[in-house]
Amino acid sequence: MVQVTIADRSQRVRSRLAATAKADALLVSDITNIRWLTGFTGSNAWVVLYPDGLTLITDGRYGQQAAQQMAAAGVEGEVLVGATSPLVVDHIAQCCDQFARVAFEATHVTYAQHAQYVQAIKSELVPATGIVEAERRVKDAREIEMMAQACRIADQALAEVAPTLADGLTEAQVRNHLETRMRELGAIGPSYETIVATGPINAALPHHRPTSTLIESGHTVIIDVGALVDGYHSDMTRTFFIGEPTALQRELYDVVLAAQRAGVAAVAAGISTKELDGVCRRIIEEAGYGEWFTHGTGHGVGLLIHEDPFINRAGDTILQVGDVVTVEPGVYHEGFGGIRIEDLVVVTSDGCRVLTASPKDSSCLPSPPTI
Amino acid sequence: MVQVTIADRSQRVRSRLAATAKADALLVSDITNIRWLTGFTGSNAWVVLYPDGLTLITDGRYGQQAAQQMAAAGVEGEVLVGATSPLVVDHIAQCCDQFARVAFEATHVTYAQHAQYVQAIKSELVPATGIVEAERRVKDAREIEMMAQACRIADQALAEVAPTLADGLTEAQVRNHLETRMRELGAIGPSYETIVATGPINAALPHHRPTSTLIESGHTVIIDVGALVDGYHSDMTRTFFIGEPTALQRELYDVVLAAQRAGVAAVAAGISTKELDGVCRRIIEEAGYGEWFTHGTGHGVGLLIHEDPFINRAGDTILQVGDVVTVEPGVYHEGFGGIRIEDLVVVTSDGCRVLTASPKDSSCLPSPPTI
Repeated sequence: MVQVTIADRSQRVRSRLAATAKADALLVSDITNIRWLTGFTGSNAWVVLYPDGLTLITDGRYGQQAAQQMAAAGVEGEVLVGATSPLVVDHIAQCCDQFARVAFEATHVTYAQHAQYVQAIKSELVPATGIVEAERRVKDAREIEMMAQACRIADQALAEVAPTLADGLTEAQVRNHLETRMRELGAIGPSYETIVATGPINAALPHHRPTSTLIESGHTVIIDVGALVDGYHSDMTRTFFIGEPTALQRELYDVVLAAQRAGVAAVAAGISTKELDGVCRRIIEEAGYGEWFTHGTGHGVGLLIHEDPFINRAGDTILQVGDVVTVEPGVYHEGFGGIRIEDLVVVTSDGCRVLTASPKDSSCLPSPPTI
Repeated sequence: MVQVTIADRSQRVRSRLAATAKADALLVSDITNIRWLTGFTGSNAWVVLYPDGLTLITDGRYGQQAAQQMAAAGVEGEVLVGATSPLVVDHIAQCCDQFARVAFEATHVTYAQHAQYVQAIKSELVPATGIVEAERRVKDAREIEMMAQACRIADQALAEVAPTLADGLTEAQVRNHLETRMRELGAIGPSYETIVATGPINAALPHHRPTSTLIESGHTVIIDVGALVDGYHSDMTRTFFIGEPTALQRELYDVVLAAQRAGVAAVAAGISTKELDGVCRRIIEEAGYGEWFTHGTGHGVGLLIHEDPFINRAGDTILQVGDVVTVEPGVYHEGFGGIRIEDLVVVTSDGCRVLTASPKDSSCLPSPPTI
């Protein structure tokens, strides 16, 4: 993996800006891009990135914190505190006006903000897309280690909680146990709201929120769980049978597992996200359940739980070394329930490294529920 | 409080649209506005609101869930599933093209989305701001009850955890205890990442994230904690002394408490947010600590932890019955630490009702730490 420090990231973005947008400076509005560029973890900021430095603009809650976090990350730059909305625009204008052309993040700046900027800023404003994201996609060794640690925490929590699934718990209770254990194991919290979806109705919803529904014999239970470590997310799904699986449950588990394994085996630098989606989808379609696979095959993970690259039928992104993505085919049908299996993997120079380690072999699955 | 059902909300928005934007339909992009309008709790959707119905567009993960949740809320409308980005724009265009003028949410649609819409949609696109938010601001009885319940959960969790503050715990441990107890008491989770900020350095950061710093004698400890119940947030801050407070700690606590009480007493329909901010700020300024009060006095709370109306020096919004807002003056100074006291209140026809009930009288505060 590429080794970069936070302080090096600005220079990478400047190079990409020069190569793609023909602008002298970049106004960064997206808070995740700002965290990645500066180390600042607050919820409200703008950054103007100059050829030889940067200014971070935030509100009164965060002035001191921003200066401390930038210093800790080795990022040289100025912090301006503008408490209220007109002041922020004035500060942004003050930073931009010295440059003829300033690029802005067209997918993060709203129509209304753009209208304000056009009024206040003298520079020509140039729409740009994905400049910081293109650099942020490639994870460095420290970022991968944070995600690997988040995966280990989720693996451990699931290993402890899975044996209790037949104990008459509700979906919400299982979620609470998983999330409490992840915190105790060192996570800041869950990476997203843990999904525990049981039985013929709830498990048929790919993004079901846990309820007071009891987990009962005959159910498949989808558990989608990740941990958050220093801003970095993990993401993993396993599916359990409660009691002896039916023939259909077993058949579909094997289909999804085959699709998921083929997907992981196909992950490599150079494959397009569309091709990778097709590897999983074809196996499920050929088994006759294509219509039950109602979502894409995966997505990038990092400082966001869902980020570039997205792996689906329309995806024309090419995977590259340092991408961290999920591979998560699934099948869902009301009355049947659902099955999804998901790993988090890093693209390496010779394929990929799987960061999630919970067992997924269906031979482990019959009652009592284990992984 | 106004009694409305979810199904009534569309009609209120249509009336406001007709009165303010001269458009035949409204394209809703903000996911919180969509949840409020339809009951749909997923993370990805668009709604086109027509004079006589609505269409919700989402992706394959959520088609079934959206239909179920809209039916459960009594909202009549169509659900279209468009898995990928070009399809979504096609679906939106298909819904909009029959109307001459379609309003869009200028503060939620990005510059890049607007450019796509202009390409794909035949209707004239009219920027509009805050149409759904203006209705969403006014909470109905059920929404207030969800927030009151969230406040009770946070009150209870804090009452249990506060007596342990002198037991040699770290900030992160206290956060974990609070968040675990809130879940056990019925919250979906914390309303935001709980703030536990102790001592002369960490408590000087208004939005400090809990660390492994030990809570020690001589510290002030700021705890900012809320619960999430059915999508609705609570928000409360209390400050504790560990051991006998110094004269300065006591003086500043009394100043902040006086400011906070004056703020709560001033909350009423008809006051401007700027005036309300001034009520708190003046007391802190007159005590000589105006520069230590580095943020606004409060903000609205609902389906978002921070929403309209924002209460600060620049705020020219007038409070109205049904607004739910925080009143949270504070003082911060590196080397001293910080003190903040915050309640969540609902504006009523005769002032306000305070939803948070944890004690805040400074006479309760010296060692051993209690509230």
